[in-house]
Amino acid sequence: MTRSFYPPQRTLMGPGPSDVSPRVLGALSRPTIGHLDPVFIRLMDEIKALLQFALQTENELTLPVSAPGSAGMETCFVNLVCPGDKVIVCQNGVFGGRMRENVERCGGIAVMVEDAWGEPVDPEKVRAAFAAHPDAAILAFVHAETSTGVRSDAATLCAIARENGALSIVDCVTSLGGIEVSVDLWGADAVYSGTQKCLSCVPGISPVTFSPMAVERIAARQHKVQSWFLDMQLVMGYWGGSAKRAYHHTAPVNNLYALHESLVMLEEEGLEAAFARHALNHRALVAGLEAMGLSMAVAAEHRLVQLNSVVIPEGVDDAAVRAALLNDFDLEIGAGLGALAGKTWRIGLMGHASCERNVMHCLNALEAVLAGQGARVASGLAAARAAYER
Amino acid sequence: MTRSFYPPQRTLMGPGPSDVSPRVLGALSRPTIGHLDPVFIRLMDEIKALLQFALQTENELTLPVSAPGSAGMETCFVNLVCPGDKVIVCQNGVFGGRMRENVERCGGIAVMVEDAWGEPVDPEKVRAAFAAHPDAAILAFVHAETSTGVRSDAATLCAIARENGALSIVDCVTSLGGIEVSVDLWGADAVYSGTQKCLSCVPGISPVTFSPMAVERIAARQHKVQSWFLDMQLVMGYWGGSAKRAYHHTAPVNNLYALHESLVMLEEEGLEAAFARHALNHRALVAGLEAMGLSMAVAAEHRLVQLNSVVIPEGVDDAAVRAALLNDFDLEIGAGLGALAGKTWRIGLMGHASCERNVMHCLNALEAVLAGQGARVASGLAAARAAYER
Repeated sequence: MTRSFYPPQRTLMGPGPSDVSPRVLGALSRPTIGHLDPVFIRLMDEIKALLQFALQTENELTLPVSAPGSAGMETCFVNLVCPGDKVIVCQNGVFGGRMRENVERCGGIAVMVEDAWGEPVDPEKVRAAFAAHPDAAILAFVHAETSTGVRSDAATLCAIARENGALSIVDCVTSLGGIEVSVDLWGADAVYSGTQKCLSCVPGISPVTFSPMAVERIAARQHKVQSWFLDMQLVMGYWGGSAKRAYHHTAPVNNLYALHESLVMLEEEGLEAAFARHALNHRALVAGLEAMGLSMAVAAEHRLVQLNSVVIPEGVDDAAVRAALLNDFDLEIGAGLGALAGKTWRIGLMGHASCERNVMHCLNALEAVLAGQGARVASGLAAARAAYER
Repeated sequence: MTRSFYPPQRTLMGPGPSDVSPRVLGALSRPTIGHLDPVFIRLMDEIKALLQFALQTENELTLPVSAPGSAGMETCFVNLVCPGDKVIVCQNGVFGGRMRENVERCGGIAVMVEDAWGEPVDPEKVRAAFAAHPDAAILAFVHAETSTGVRSDAATLCAIARENGALSIVDCVTSLGGIEVSVDLWGADAVYSGTQKCLSCVPGISPVTFSPMAVERIAARQHKVQSWFLDMQLVMGYWGGSAKRAYHHTAPVNNLYALHESLVMLEEEGLEAAFARHALNHRALVAGLEAMGLSMAVAAEHRLVQLNSVVIPEGVDDAAVRAALLNDFDLEIGAGLGALAGKTWRIGLMGHASCERNVMHCLNALEAVLAGQGARVASGLAAARAAYER
């Protein structure tokens, strides 16, 4: 007989999932109701309004896709890309590569704009790509690259797309709730995110929003969206504004309780306060890490405050350090991905997990583990403490 | 400011979601851990083994897709159907129509075998379809039609596919955990299910399993699977047997805690005992409904024990009855779908919700509401009670 599963209580400071607030876990486990229950329909309306707030948009087509961020990405591509469409895809980490896969699986043509892993997307390269491909219909890029910890300039990149008559698809999986995501101000046309990063909700849901121009493009499609499950024309029938909601698929009811609660918490704190909190804890962590003698992998002006890439010091055993943090301190930090595997650690300070306690816990644990492995490190605690002095 | 959401406590006797056990809700809200945590990887292995038990299969490729049953359906079709492939699709309700959509969006050719809503799939028509289309590569059908409450003969239909050199795709969304689903005995090649029906878990996850022949077909594909998110070759890298699990997408960690717990409960009860419980409560409900003077919409030999289609009596206001059940008794039953809208109710007795208390609650509430609407109904309570006499 298999026994019930009781997870250890970790502190989640990797690239996500991040620590989930007890309030959100409490909401998650409330009694399930039907996905067509009038009470649930009202909850759906509240979630839409809260997502519009979080994404800073008035887009009517704003809703949570019933699957993880990867499906949110796919939702944007399958609805906007038709076979033969040319899409300029910026790659400066793992997720740009995944965008390319999406374009090609839709029968589109991906024009790649490459930047080094650890660098932001270079707007000049994007301008050059549009000059070389004036028929490009879409620009796709990642706002907050989870694989490297780099922020790109979304406002500038969306403006370049608009100037060239193209729509923009923006990956905001790791940015939403941690740093500014201003969909309308940017003029972004399709944005997807995740719940398990700076919203500190459980993984499994992907908020998306489409601008009126993106909706027009979807409505004008001659070629059916290749995914039935992610076809926005059908999903809208369930999530749309009309009084009569048509069954499309069974919504993940309890996950939506949790998403609602996490968005209520964000509304209570306020966006600016949440961003300031993320920035403060980032400054403290970086001060601590640098005092320890470690170096950040990303230049200061491009760093994500919610995901901190640290260079693994020469001679230190990456996997052994992460295992010791997990086993001795119940602390999860992230490994490097792709080109940065074995070269960086990724320390998340996302949502509920972006707090002074976690910063100090991480610095303390890292110091102990590195010293235990014979590395020469100073203490970072005092420097981090100083960053919090009012 | 938006307030936290507290759902009413419903009794869920519609077509799903069904009542979720407090044990499962408890598991759902345990602390989130990372999707690459070694402890989580062990949980994934247990879930695979438990799904193999529930599906009665030794298929290595057995795992929960990180999205609802509609995505489980799409997983089977996008991985097995290549452009130009001919697929025989049986339609005797809503979900056969959705299968056709899936085939066509994969670029396949759907050959439809139609049966009336409320009837099972006719094996003779399937044989005739193979005779007319010997090049058909796949047969797709629904084992338990959620829209009508009808069970089709999966063993016979899978055998016909095999005899004709075709693979079978079987929808077991509503059957798994409630009636026999014997994947290996049937020789089914791709089966998908849902968690929110007879497993009584929260909605949002779709168990799937692929036979070795189906895996061979996937491996031999020349055309990339159109969905990146649902591409089994990629998903296998994360869920597969190897010690090193590659990141594909972030698993819905807490939902998988819940799925694990619901499968542990099924293992504790035993499959045969669970099926017997579903059958007993079905007999009691039908005895009660018939004593009230109501008629079942499906012939006795084809009825699903977990989803009971009842003919709405002449002159009764469908929507008003369902609204009164919901508002006065916190009881959800299902409306008719598609061709049966306004003609039938669908009363679910699924998983944790298949119990004597719910049968009596439903009969009592229905009697009160119908009487309140001026319908002449007898009481069904004594007849139902009698069905439980040992």
